[in-house]
Amino acid sequence: MSVMRIAELSERAGVPIPTIKYYLREGLLPRGEATGRNQASYGAEHLSRLRLVRALTTVGGLSVATVRTVLDEVGGPGVGLHSQLGLVMRRLPLVGADIEPQDRDRERARELVARHGWFFYPDHPALEALAVVLAGHREAGHPVSDADLDRYAGAVEAFAEIDLDRLDGLPEGEDVLEGAVVKTVLGDTLITVLRRLAQIDESAQRNLGEDERRARREMREG
Amino acid sequence: MSVMRIAELSERAGVPIPTIKYYLREGLLPRGEATGRNQASYGAEHLSRLRLVRALTTVGGLSVATVRTVLDEVGGPGVGLHSQLGLVMRRLPLVGADIEPQDRDRERARELVARHGWFFYPDHPALEALAVVLAGHREAGHPVSDADLDRYAGAVEAFAEIDLDRLDGLPEGEDVLEGAVVKTVLGDTLITVLRRLAQIDESAQRNLGEDERRARREMREG
Repeated sequence: MSVMRIAELSERAGVPIPTIKYYLREGLLPRGEATGRNQASYGAEHLSRLRLVRALTTVGGLSVATVRTVLDEVGGPGVGLHSQLGLVMRRLPLVGADIEPQDRDRERARELVARHGWFFYPDHPALEALAVVLAGHREAGHPVSDADLDRYAGAVEAFAEIDLDRLDGLPEGEDVLEGAVVKTVLGDTLITVLRRLAQIDESAQRNLGEDERRARREMREG
Repeated sequence: MSVMRIAELSERAGVPIPTIKYYLREGLLPRGEATGRNQASYGAEHLSRLRLVRALTTVGGLSVATVRTVLDEVGGPGVGLHSQLGLVMRRLPLVGADIEPQDRDRERARELVARHGWFFYPDHPALEALAVVLAGHREAGHPVSDADLDRYAGAVEAFAEIDLDRLDGLPEGEDVLEGAVVKTVLGDTLITVLRRLAQIDESAQRNLGEDERRARREMREG
């Protein structure tokens, strides 16, 4: 790929020029090579970085500030992939923080990980996030029972195994951590969407009569 | 519970008075009973509605506009719980929409549901959302393989079964749809958080030596 002016970079990435200039100012995108007063040229590494930023902000739902923090970690000195990934994961916001959990919510979160024999770090933000989610359900008037929590916890273990297999399968190289972040962040959205599709199917199985299911299937295929 | 002034409502719900006034203006919260010029009293139904709105906006991550639309549907005339829930689900945003999928992404989304024999509605937003997520991975330079998609799709079927069991277990009554929405929206966040905790455990199993795991466990317990 040859070098590009900002207009071509914008067109190829599908990102408007003002947004690119904003990312440049915020340090999300490295400066291009200056080719004159107010002109610079950009290369393949700018295009791929731009696409990464866009995917994390749109599909991943991260704020620009969070993306910058995460990309700084990704570019930082390595202490082993999994430790570095662990640091990045702590930075990813899991829930809006407006709800303050009660002691009981925090206890239930710890009891859950203990009950399932999960290894955990007592100060990890994911543990506090679980307490916040439990508080949110409670405050919305629909608390989660321990029985439901245990069923979900059992089911997520299958995901974690797939997730780690995918990370272990990443080729060695400088963008391995970047790949891990993308797979984790976009993977959250992927699973949410797949779960919705599976719910539609499960709901149809339980609630539509056989005739209606067949009629809709024929309508769809015909 | 006795009637409350707005100050008490604010304190009990933990929501600032200006936010309550904003919700009143936007129709998210029904007006209180006027008790004088510029004064109104509020009851238990205001408190529970306020907590619901807060849970959906913070833990659920929904915008105020989306919450209003969803609550309008919840309060609308019923055509059976599952059909009504289906309408509400179509309103819930699944992904940021800045990425336009290519035909190939849409094909892969349809092929996936077909491969798993899932019942689906061809015009359902969740199907388009899957195409967007696939496009996001691709644009970020880390496309999802069909093999990984299939593993995730197999695993979400377990969730859908738990999800529908939870809905079927809701007591009959006017807030059954509200409960269904809360469980689905907050359930997305719950699963994301549980998945992160299960990843930490799986990562520790694979990457920490037995000595280190024991040392950390003792540190945690001691």
